[in-house]
Amino acid sequence: MTDLLEKAPTRFLPIGDDVSALELDQDRLAVVKSDTLVGKTDVPPGMSLWQAARKAVVINVSDFAAKGVQPLAILASLAFPPHLRKEDLEQIARGLGAGAAEYGAYVIGGDTNETAVDLVITCSLFGICRKDELIKRSGAKPGDLVAVTGTFGEVSAGLKILLENLDAPARLKEKLLAPVYMPNARLREGLALAETGLVTASIDSSDGLAWSLYELSEASGVGFSLTSLPTSSEVQEFARMHGLDVHELALYGGEEFELVVTVNPEGWSQVRRAVEKAGGSILQIGRVVEEREMTLKVGKELIMLEPKGFQHFSQAP
Amino acid sequence: MTDLLEKAPTRFLPIGDDVSALELDQDRLAVVKSDTLVGKTDVPPGMSLWQAARKAVVINVSDFAAKGVQPLAILASLAFPPHLRKEDLEQIARGLGAGAAEYGAYVIGGDTNETAVDLVITCSLFGICRKDELIKRSGAKPGDLVAVTGTFGEVSAGLKILLENLDAPARLKEKLLAPVYMPNARLREGLALAETGLVTASIDSSDGLAWSLYELSEASGVGFSLTSLPTSSEVQEFARMHGLDVHELALYGGEEFELVVTVNPEGWSQVRRAVEKAGGSILQIGRVVEEREMTLKVGKELIMLEPKGFQHFSQAP
Repeated sequence: MTDLLEKAPTRFLPIGDDVSALELDQDRLAVVKSDTLVGKTDVPPGMSLWQAARKAVVINVSDFAAKGVQPLAILASLAFPPHLRKEDLEQIARGLGAGAAEYGAYVIGGDTNETAVDLVITCSLFGICRKDELIKRSGAKPGDLVAVTGTFGEVSAGLKILLENLDAPARLKEKLLAPVYMPNARLREGLALAETGLVTASIDSSDGLAWSLYELSEASGVGFSLTSLPTSSEVQEFARMHGLDVHELALYGGEEFELVVTVNPEGWSQVRRAVEKAGGSILQIGRVVEEREMTLKVGKELIMLEPKGFQHFSQAP
Repeated sequence: MTDLLEKAPTRFLPIGDDVSALELDQDRLAVVKSDTLVGKTDVPPGMSLWQAARKAVVINVSDFAAKGVQPLAILASLAFPPHLRKEDLEQIARGLGAGAAEYGAYVIGGDTNETAVDLVITCSLFGICRKDELIKRSGAKPGDLVAVTGTFGEVSAGLKILLENLDAPARLKEKLLAPVYMPNARLREGLALAETGLVTASIDSSDGLAWSLYELSEASGVGFSLTSLPTSSEVQEFARMHGLDVHELALYGGEEFELVVTVNPEGWSQVRRAVEKAGGSILQIGRVVEEREMTLKVGKELIMLEPKGFQHFSQAP
C-alpha cells in the first residue's frame, strides 16, 4: 500500500521503520508513531481493560525504545462497543495513564467513538531526538555483534496456555502469563543504547525474533549467524512438558517487546555497561554476516531461520 | 475521563481543545491531533472507501484549520474487517493520500490491523507553529464579532435524505449530498485567519454550530448574540419541502467543517480581506456578549440556542 502514497520531502526514515521522523531543524527530528490495539487480535482471554489499554501504550513505546527515543506525548483514540459502561472507560483511561507514566510520557489528547463490536485503541506517540541519535534498521554491518535485551518464548508459551488450552502447573503459568498481560517495553535499555552511539541497527521483536532479524536483514542487506537463543527455564520446562520445540517458541512467537540490535564489536563492553547501568541486560546471540541468510547453530546442527512472523491470534468476537 | 489522566508539564492547550500542543522551544509548538473515523457512525450509505479514507483525513485537518496550523505529516492506523479485499485497501490508501495532498500534507506511516466487523481509520496529524499564532478557544471577549466561513445545514439535510429516506429533486440531492461525501476543511481560511493575529477564539463546527458556540462559550466565559444564520437556498428549499425548521437544520447538524471564530471588531475588514485573498469567505453572524447565554434574533423573535450537539448517526453494522 505504501507505494500508493506520495513521499514526504522531509521524511527521514523510510516507511516501514519502527517510527516515522520529520526534520524539525538542523539538529533535531520529530518522531511519531501510531499503532493500534484491536480486541479481536491483541487482547487475549483474561486480559482486563486496564491491561489492554496499558498494552496499547506499551506496543508503541517499544517502537520508540527500538529507535532510542523518549516518547513525550501520547494521543489515544478509542473506539468501543456500545455495551461498555462508564466504569469500563475509566479502566481504559487509567490503563492508558499508567502506561504513559511508566515510561515518562503523558496522554495529552485523543477522542472516543462508538463502534459496532470490537474494542480498538490507537495510540499515537510523539517525541524529539537528535538526528545523530536515532537508530535505524539499516546500519548493520558484517562483523557486528547481534544482541537482545531479554529471553524469548514466554509469550508464545503463555498464548498456548490461553488459546490452545495447554496446561501447566500454577507457578509456571504465572511466569508465562505475566508478560502476556503485562508486557514491558525496553525503553531504558533503548535510550541507553542510543546514547552510546555504538548500535548500528535496531528493531523491537514485537512480530517475533526471526521476523525482526529478517527485517533488519532486508533493511541492512546482511545476514545473521546466531550461536545462541536465550530462553528461560520456564519456557524450556513448558516445551518439554508438551513436546514442543523450544526454538520454535522462541523464534516465531511474537508480542515480546525485546530489542534486537547490532553492535560494533569494539564497543561491546561499553554497550553492555551502558545497558546494565540503565538497569537492563543485553545478551550477545550471534554475528552479522555478509551472506543474506539467517542461521542458528545448536550443537552440531545448523537451523535455517525462516522469514516468518507472528500472526496475531484471532478469537471469535 | 480526562480527569483521570496526569497533566503534562509542557502542555500548552487544555485537553479538549481541537488539537494538543507541546513546547518545542522558546518560540515554537509541536501540534498533534488524533481523530477516528468509524464505519458505523461516520460512513453514511453510498460513501465509497476512497471517500471514507479521505474524510478521515479531512476531520483532522479541520481541527488544524481551526487552530491556524498547517499539518505536515499524517499517520494512518487502519482496522478493517476480514472481508475487505486488496483493491479495497488500495482505495483506502489512495483516499488517504488524496486527502493529504489536498491540504499539503503527507502520509508518513501507520499500521493495518484486522478487526471483527467495523472499519476504523485513525489519523494522527503533526504540525509545527509559532506559539503566538495558535488560536485557542479561550480568547473570545464581549464586543468581538462572531463569524463563520460558510453556510450551515447542507449536511443535516443530506443525512436526512440518506438516513431518513426524505426525498428531493435530483439537482437538490446533488447539492446536499456533495458535502456529505466530500467534506472540505477550511485550512486556507484558518491559516489566513491565524496570520492576521486578530482572531480571539476559534473552533471548527464538526459537532454542529450550536455546540461549537457552546464550546467557545465555556472556554472563554462569554455568551453569543447571533443576528443571522447563513444557510443556502437549497437548504431553505429542502426545509420548506419537508416542513422542517431551517434553523434546526443549521444549528444542530454536524459533520460540517466550517470555522467558527471571534474577531476583534477593529480588525474585521482586515480579517475579511485576508480570508478572501486566501480564496475563502467569512460572514459575520453576531457578537460576543458578557451574559453566558446564546441567542439568535430572527425578525422580532429571539430563539435561545441549546447546548446540544450532533449525535453521530448509527447504522446497523
